[in-house]
Amino acid sequence: MSIGAARYIIDTGLSKIDDSFFRHSSAAIVGASSDYNMGHAFVQCLQDSGFRGRLYPVNPAGGEIRGLPVYRRLSDIPGRVDYVISCIPARLTPQLVRDSAAKGARVVSFFTAGYSESGRREGREMEDELLRAARAAGVRLLGPNCLGLYCPETGLSFAADFPKDKGGVAFIAQSGGNSIYLIRTAGRRGVRFSKAVSYGNACDVSECDLMEYFITDSDTTMVAAYIEGIRDARRFRRVLQRLAAAKPVIILKGGSTPGGAVAASSHTGSLAGQDESWEGLLRQTRAIRVHDLDEMADMLVALSFPGHPRGRRVAVFGSNGGFSVLTADDFIRAGFELPQLDPPWQQRLHEAVARFSRSDAGMILKNPFDITNIASAEGLQAAMKTMADSGCFDLMVAQLSISNSGWPFVDSPFTAWPGIFVDALLAVHRETGRPTAVILHSITHPVELERFGALQQKCQSAGLPVYDSIPRAVLALDRLVRHNANHPA
Amino acid sequence: MSIGAARYIIDTGLSKIDDSFFRHSSAAIVGASSDYNMGHAFVQCLQDSGFRGRLYPVNPAGGEIRGLPVYRRLSDIPGRVDYVISCIPARLTPQLVRDSAAKGARVVSFFTAGYSESGRREGREMEDELLRAARAAGVRLLGPNCLGLYCPETGLSFAADFPKDKGGVAFIAQSGGNSIYLIRTAGRRGVRFSKAVSYGNACDVSECDLMEYFITDSDTTMVAAYIEGIRDARRFRRVLQRLAAAKPVIILKGGSTPGGAVAASSHTGSLAGQDESWEGLLRQTRAIRVHDLDEMADMLVALSFPGHPRGRRVAVFGSNGGFSVLTADDFIRAGFELPQLDPPWQQRLHEAVARFSRSDAGMILKNPFDITNIASAEGLQAAMKTMADSGCFDLMVAQLSISNSGWPFVDSPFTAWPGIFVDALLAVHRETGRPTAVILHSITHPVELERFGALQQKCQSAGLPVYDSIPRAVLALDRLVRHNANHPA
Repeated sequence: MSIGAARYIIDTGLSKIDDSFFRHSSAAIVGASSDYNMGHAFVQCLQDSGFRGRLYPVNPAGGEIRGLPVYRRLSDIPGRVDYVISCIPARLTPQLVRDSAAKGARVVSFFTAGYSESGRREGREMEDELLRAARAAGVRLLGPNCLGLYCPETGLSFAADFPKDKGGVAFIAQSGGNSIYLIRTAGRRGVRFSKAVSYGNACDVSECDLMEYFITDSDTTMVAAYIEGIRDARRFRRVLQRLAAAKPVIILKGGSTPGGAVAASSHTGSLAGQDESWEGLLRQTRAIRVHDLDEMADMLVALSFPGHPRGRRVAVFGSNGGFSVLTADDFIRAGFELPQLDPPWQQRLHEAVARFSRSDAGMILKNPFDITNIASAEGLQAAMKTMADSGCFDLMVAQLSISNSGWPFVDSPFTAWPGIFVDALLAVHRETGRPTAVILHSITHPVELERFGALQQKCQSAGLPVYDSIPRAVLALDRLVRHNANHPA
Repeated sequence: MSIGAARYIIDTGLSKIDDSFFRHSSAAIVGASSDYNMGHAFVQCLQDSGFRGRLYPVNPAGGEIRGLPVYRRLSDIPGRVDYVISCIPARLTPQLVRDSAAKGARVVSFFTAGYSESGRREGREMEDELLRAARAAGVRLLGPNCLGLYCPETGLSFAADFPKDKGGVAFIAQSGGNSIYLIRTAGRRGVRFSKAVSYGNACDVSECDLMEYFITDSDTTMVAAYIEGIRDARRFRRVLQRLAAAKPVIILKGGSTPGGAVAASSHTGSLAGQDESWEGLLRQTRAIRVHDLDEMADMLVALSFPGHPRGRRVAVFGSNGGFSVLTADDFIRAGFELPQLDPPWQQRLHEAVARFSRSDAGMILKNPFDITNIASAEGLQAAMKTMADSGCFDLMVAQLSISNSGWPFVDSPFTAWPGIFVDALLAVHRETGRPTAVILHSITHPVELERFGALQQKCQSAGLPVYDSIPRAVLALDRLVRHNANHPA
């Protein structure tokens, strides 16, 4: 059977990705050695991630890894093996595919690299041979040149510290390193994943196969993708159109310049395509385009947390006049409005401040509000509640500059203030339910990072999205409002 | 004497800022109490910053602060007081100016707020009264509503952890919080300051006075400014033109939108002005415009470190194929080139890799180079030296993704690699002297921040600029190349 024919079968739905692609009750790591190597690392990672299946290291040298016997051959393993991870040299891998099929494997994932991305004829031929062997045996291939599957539900993972609880985000990426960073950084910000796939060269399982599956996957509420190249532009357009109509889709296109395209070709053997046609396609399908992984994480945070604003009227409030000015500039530049409180509410704000502060010196009692000098929880709550109750705003944006909170030291009695501020914010949010976003920014010191981490967790646990940069928060909120306007609930 | 007349005297040079504005052998902090308050914090800060002068806390309640007697009145202090910091309510400050003059003070700095920025008539009148008192007494005023002076040479500071050694950057800002963040974050990145001034409402000492001084200040090699508003547009144009012709100038304009302008007015009583005229002025004077404080810090890093590139041919090399692709995209989009090695050098690179690695699988041996799988210092040095010696590049850009370096754990044997990489980089830089920039990015974990901090310090000590974000590094390097093209040495 030719590769073209094999692809046709996939395209026509004969061998679609389904849940069984992600759920495995046994996994073999081929090429794991008792000395530390990549295969060993995979074994350790799956153990520490709590993989809920049997784990079989395989290496001709035998031995033991962390209490597990190392099998000399795949065929020595008793019983069936669902999922195989290859960490052996490329020239040995076609035989591995056949051996895996003989053990009943459904998916073989190739950490192994050195195929089409090498730019060499042998590499391309080897990749074709892999695919032929897989087709003949009815096995699906992931990669080559990838990290494979993350499925928190089954404890399958490719980094030991990925979140162990599941959520609604499906993420696919041609780059393993990008996958690790995105899942880690978004994970720390409260984003949870249904499934993630590092899919490398995409010689068999492609972005189209995966995105098609996510259209109907009931675990998945939104999809993010880092894509360097596609092989079937028509199918991609069709699948993306259906997917983006069903769920929010965020795309980061790598290799969108000539220099990046050279890199993409050497990285995953991808043909990067014209950036103009990508831009048009993404606009047409109303997928959300982002330009780096931090923007992608911001967007996942914006979409994952409840309380989306229904309009562009923003109240900015928090600490530090200079940052208030800059935050206002960024929101206005992005097309938001910062209206002022209606006079009776403005009056109430002044009354609240008069009740709880000796003076209003050093504060801004207009939007953007600088309420640094309200020291008490009651005073902060009264001020924030006035804003929330006024009905003048679609979105409450709290901005706290962490670095200044301990002025003039990293540690001083003033460092308690951000905590008091956050408690007041959460109380008002609980009471009013107003859409609220938090920006905890300007961290310069490891001590501040700890302080920031604690406040961040507190806000996230209460259901509030937290951003760590003013301009990136504004960018994500703008994209969120645009997306929701394009996709009325 | 009217305010107009007083301003005329300054404008005509009768009372210019000079070195004595920054060098004081005694300082009084008025309003410091033995219980912790802002004045107390200033005393503590000046002690911990190593202020090389006499320090006098002043408070009608008397007492003691950290071993220092608290004087009940300014006039009780024996001898002269050069510098006075006001932390008392605004209504008491006109008398303070007169008392300060009586003690021989040259400068009074007002942490005190509640003047023109309050938007109230009493506030504006009080500010005018301050100025009249100062003019009558021949004292210069800083602020009000500011943090005052940072001058590492004399140990004068407004945050205890600011760098204690001096450098060439002068920084002025209307926002105290912005000052703290900028000096802290740039300081951690190896930027050192000649003088910095948080100048608040600028009722007396203005951005023009300060920038004029920096034109000829021999300690200052470049100037950065956060400005919300100016009072004398003609003078500002004249001063900026002369300053920017003499030294690099970086400007962050706050209040450049209508919403930001409202905030600027409430923050420092500033009239923000039309953004278009600012844009034109900055373009005309060839000042470098930035849009937030991180971009400002990046620009100070770019200008402060030696080894500026003379052209746009960049070699990108480091870890992770996906980040290599994205870095290439960002550089190309900003107008840089990523040329390939000339064939003989390309041949040498392949030979080096063949000598030091078992295979080139998983690497990109084209520009952008992914050399993650060269494990040894010798191999990395050989590869980097080939790029440096080739003469194909104006700038070497090393990018390391910190979060992936410990895959699949935050801590694993692989975490040693970035250290080996950095050592090789520094060895090649020592040997070849090629312009080199480092991007240490994608940090997700406190442990990684420590690791990053150590590598960052190592690079900075060796004279290499370090950035923590790929897009912001590209932005700063683009601005650097443009600036240098506009200002040939």
